[in-house]
Amino acid sequence: MHSIAINDALCYINGEFTRASIGIDGKRISKVSKQELKGKITFTGKNMIVIPAFFNAHTHAAMTLLRGAAEDLELSEWLRNVWRLERKMTASDIYWGTMLAIVEMIRSGIAGFSDLYIFMDEVAKAVGESGVRAVLCYGMADRGDEEKARRELEIGEKFIRDWNNSFDGRITAIYGPHAPYTCTPDFLRTVKERADKIGTRIHIHVSETQWEVEEIKSRYGTTPVRLLDRIGFLDSNVVIAHGVWLDDEEIEILRRRGVSVVHNPVSNLKLSSGIARVRDMLERGINVALGSDGVASNNSFNFFQEMKFASLLQKVKYMRADAVKARDVMDMATANGYAAYGIEGGRIEEGYLADLAILSKSPQFYPSYNPLYSLVYSASGEEVQHLIVNGEIVMEDRVVLTIDEEKVTDKVEKIKEKFTS
Amino acid sequence: MHSIAINDALCYINGEFTRASIGIDGKRISKVSKQELKGKITFTGKNMIVIPAFFNAHTHAAMTLLRGAAEDLELSEWLRNVWRLERKMTASDIYWGTMLAIVEMIRSGIAGFSDLYIFMDEVAKAVGESGVRAVLCYGMADRGDEEKARRELEIGEKFIRDWNNSFDGRITAIYGPHAPYTCTPDFLRTVKERADKIGTRIHIHVSETQWEVEEIKSRYGTTPVRLLDRIGFLDSNVVIAHGVWLDDEEIEILRRRGVSVVHNPVSNLKLSSGIARVRDMLERGINVALGSDGVASNNSFNFFQEMKFASLLQKVKYMRADAVKARDVMDMATANGYAAYGIEGGRIEEGYLADLAILSKSPQFYPSYNPLYSLVYSASGEEVQHLIVNGEIVMEDRVVLTIDEEKVTDKVEKIKEKFTS
Repeated sequence: MHSIAINDALCYINGEFTRASIGIDGKRISKVSKQELKGKITFTGKNMIVIPAFFNAHTHAAMTLLRGAAEDLELSEWLRNVWRLERKMTASDIYWGTMLAIVEMIRSGIAGFSDLYIFMDEVAKAVGESGVRAVLCYGMADRGDEEKARRELEIGEKFIRDWNNSFDGRITAIYGPHAPYTCTPDFLRTVKERADKIGTRIHIHVSETQWEVEEIKSRYGTTPVRLLDRIGFLDSNVVIAHGVWLDDEEIEILRRRGVSVVHNPVSNLKLSSGIARVRDMLERGINVALGSDGVASNNSFNFFQEMKFASLLQKVKYMRADAVKARDVMDMATANGYAAYGIEGGRIEEGYLADLAILSKSPQFYPSYNPLYSLVYSASGEEVQHLIVNGEIVMEDRVVLTIDEEKVTDKVEKIKEKFTS
Repeated sequence: MHSIAINDALCYINGEFTRASIGIDGKRISKVSKQELKGKITFTGKNMIVIPAFFNAHTHAAMTLLRGAAEDLELSEWLRNVWRLERKMTASDIYWGTMLAIVEMIRSGIAGFSDLYIFMDEVAKAVGESGVRAVLCYGMADRGDEEKARRELEIGEKFIRDWNNSFDGRITAIYGPHAPYTCTPDFLRTVKERADKIGTRIHIHVSETQWEVEEIKSRYGTTPVRLLDRIGFLDSNVVIAHGVWLDDEEIEILRRRGVSVVHNPVSNLKLSSGIARVRDMLERGINVALGSDGVASNNSFNFFQEMKFASLLQKVKYMRADAVKARDVMDMATANGYAAYGIEGGRIEEGYLADLAILSKSPQFYPSYNPLYSLVYSASGEEVQHLIVNGEIVMEDRVVLTIDEEKVTDKVEKIKEKFTS
């Protein structure tokens, strides 16, 4: 008797859909079988599709609060607006903004996310209460100020001590230096040493815009990836977000160092940053994951949209319809995200964490040649019926069980008032 | 007492959202008011958003049957697959494929569509029964064969005689020569003369791919738009689909002739055709509408996705985050589509056709700075609660009233079998 059994569903296993049953015990998948399984709780339905839940590998969750506040603006003007409003944010605002983000992520089949932001204690609380999984870090930036460097490290490291492995292991707390243009090489070197020492990962923005590349060149005489490599920063415990502007040699450096890259296709379009060279990175074997970035530049946590954008953009970037295929983006959205942060999830496989999304078919899933294409190219998101995270049901029949949605949207509407006044 | 009254909703009127009430009588909007209105049927709700329903200005609806059958393939290989399967299609298949398309379009807030395909009598029947609006044409191609030219014109014109203005004016039947590379200049000249004579519009594919431009150049020594202009084909009664590969002078020709262009962003990515110069066209005052194309190359009729792609792609094409704004794509998806085909719809304005979508707010609509941004950048589609077409309710509380959805998906699954065998 498993604690949860999902019987005779079309399951995404090793890149293919096959009929199987899944048994869950504790927080892990304990059985994948062709036989019917017994469970205290059972899901059954001939039209069900079960996939590993998505992992949103780069975001700033509480930026939901600013979604729609600054639209159709150039990056510099967008940033000016965002920074002006972020200064008004309190710890409590961050809690409610994160809660709204989590509601949406759950409804879109996202079981976990990687967050780099401010007031991270509040983010951790929201993650704890809502039942999802998260890799969290305080976004540190020394900006060449030694005193600030010390303080930032202190906040970042206290956060790791306080929260790493909390909530039954649902939270992984790591280092989050913001970017090479906001952190000095010395600061980054220190972060890397400390991360290595305690066996922690690092999440950092790199090469998001052409401006950034030029800025780093003018300061250090080299490009961001080469700079990071030169100071010994790049390693398999490093996850870089964006990587839009990379030359061949930089891609080769990332491959050699085992660095993971988080692709954020929608945000990179929205802020006209560019289209990353995902095909080249995947072909060379780099682990590329998928992220929404903050929804002030997206504007939704919809991983079905994100996968469709990711695949279709590569087709036009390389002018080849087979540039990046459905399976590539499906893996980017699931297994690669977990792998980037060293979490054993993102696969329907015995021993892996039980983070699973159970979907029904919407009209756009017909005719059903192959559910993989339906998921990547046709789905809108409302197909996600149930979500299981860490072996617990967090959404059932599209009702989020762990969060009072109306309370969250009411709170967010109140918080909005100070941004518009 | 109006036949339908929508009271105190946030309505999209003249590019802005304002609180208003809408009265509907017969097939038209009879009243737009700040006062509460009385109706035999009444919709009220403080959180309702009312927009003109979408018009999908270029599609091949029954290609739903092939959705997912040929994925991640180069255009030539994709076409080979599609053509092989299309040869197996019967009239009855087209009926069911169109019905599935209409179910999805209704659920995505699309009230009308423009279709160019085969077995068009079946498409007309499906449109008639389902209660939506459509501009329909038989896709004619003479391919240099005089006998074929005669036969194609006969089918195309019989279709116009049989169906134009049928079903209380919901069907507009027009001419549909396929493209400059499948129709000879002589054939196109004849079509244009006949269309002018009976005051009918023309729907045609133009400059979809770089291959097409080269092919036309090698045959006629000039580009597609110049060729069409030279033979006197271009006029304000002409709607061209795609227009991906246009030079400055061609854009100027289209503007001068008053030609409408249908942009199909997702399909143009999927088949790696390219990204059209929408910003340039809009800036010069060309009427640009939005289309899904057939969903074998999309793979969904989701106009929220289509708007997001349309806006975001221009931002990266021009490397300007303000290249094409939310309002531009909202108008492309609504008013411009109706205008392209000379139908008085797509606006919430007294006297206009009552094609309206009533939306609720999903979590991603919060905080609510401006619903326009929520619609274009955040919506997934499940926000559409009710759809009114020609003054009649075709979907209520997300249930399509005019079509038996399950019967349609069952039929389509059966039809699929012959494509996979």
